[in-house]
Amino acid sequence: MQLFYAPGLVGDFYTLTEEESVHCVKVLRVRKGDILTMTDGCGTRIVAEVVESDRKATSVHVLERHAGAAPLGYELIVACAPTKNIDRFEWFVEKAVEVGVTAIVPICCQNSERRVVKQERLAKIAVSAMKQSLKYTLPVVEPMCDFADFVKRDFAVTAGAGIGRDDIVDTQLFIAHCDPSEDKRLLRDAVSRGSRVVITIGPEGDFSAAEVEMAHSVGFASVSLGESRLRTETAALAAVMTVLLKN
Amino acid sequence: MQLFYAPGLVGDFYTLTEEESVHCVKVLRVRKGDILTMTDGCGTRIVAEVVESDRKATSVHVLERHAGAAPLGYELIVACAPTKNIDRFEWFVEKAVEVGVTAIVPICCQNSERRVVKQERLAKIAVSAMKQSLKYTLPVVEPMCDFADFVKRDFAVTAGAGIGRDDIVDTQLFIAHCDPSEDKRLLRDAVSRGSRVVITIGPEGDFSAAEVEMAHSVGFASVSLGESRLRTETAALAAVMTVLLKN
Repeated sequence: MQLFYAPGLVGDFYTLTEEESVHCVKVLRVRKGDILTMTDGCGTRIVAEVVESDRKATSVHVLERHAGAAPLGYELIVACAPTKNIDRFEWFVEKAVEVGVTAIVPICCQNSERRVVKQERLAKIAVSAMKQSLKYTLPVVEPMCDFADFVKRDFAVTAGAGIGRDDIVDTQLFIAHCDPSEDKRLLRDAVSRGSRVVITIGPEGDFSAAEVEMAHSVGFASVSLGESRLRTETAALAAVMTVLLKN
Repeated sequence: MQLFYAPGLVGDFYTLTEEESVHCVKVLRVRKGDILTMTDGCGTRIVAEVVESDRKATSVHVLERHAGAAPLGYELIVACAPTKNIDRFEWFVEKAVEVGVTAIVPICCQNSERRVVKQERLAKIAVSAMKQSLKYTLPVVEPMCDFADFVKRDFAVTAGAGIGRDDIVDTQLFIAHCDPSEDKRLLRDAVSRGSRVVITIGPEGDFSAAEVEMAHSVGFASVSLGESRLRTETAALAAVMTVLLKN
């Protein structure tokens, strides 16, 4: 099955973006009268008929709309310092979307070697992974944000970039770091089922002691991901899989 | 901390391979008298003093040897059909070693688009990931093997490529596939703590019905990794993380 992305689809007629049109017409040889399955990226599955197949602007007529698919049994916001080698972070974005995440926030930390990311490129990777894994909700990839600004957000209200769910009331805030002097719970023991989880993963040089302290002061609890020394992107994905497996 | 790989180290003196010597001397500027932490890849942590630093053949004198480190609380053999794009499979090898695996077996299936792999290259990736994640046991990366030959092995005896542990008595055999007509248990519910787990992951086109049947006939149970449609390499890593989290 092939899923198409139709951001902003609200009415009965819609014209695909140029990128999706090219994919439709040149790669998949879609023709007038063919039926497509699409998503608006907001949880709606849309069935539509091709009215005109055009390489630049394929248009469709909406036949069915199945709204309100609850994609995950949890809400998960991962704030992660992007790796120096951006391929590794892009890989994380792809895998996290496949496995299941609500929002990804690239954060800039004291020990960050990478202080800029191409948000648009990361967002494209997220779209592609959403389509590939047949998910109907597009996780948000936020712009780069300072660690201090991130941890000070009111997560009980804002829930990442505004993707809130009324049925989730419990919010858990975690900071994963490697300082062996602190006794930490394992994330897998600390996560509750069905909660909103916010977890921060530090850069290659780890969080600074000041950052850990700042996070503690606003309610974040330290956690460990286990005994292995994991790379940043592996740690971030391990956190996503841990939350998935607890739900 | 930096870990060096010293395969076959048994006596009191040892000469590093050219690759490790270059890394020692050119990159890390190791000199005579410096202390190195090394592993033989078989669970032994070795502390040694540099006797001669040489770009091609650095030699060391062993000071301490800590044998018998039990690296994992489980034994896990993942047989996975390599992806068409080999980068994705190489990525899996790196991450699986970081997270914790006993052996990786590339398998050739009916729907495999990739029927050859460079075993030596995959083994190098495993060594590098072992060192990076400070593990003292090197997982085996086996040569490519036919699916039918793999599932017919006597796992209770051979345990992958011979890495057996006396304390593990229970062997669990799983085949993860996507055929929706079969009711499958979730891997996370099916895995027991402290057991020897063998899991097979199919190629991009999934296992054929005949392959699933063949696996069943030799005691493999079908499992699902959840509702998301995961890429081959993501499914394989999800399996590794699931086993880790159950232990």
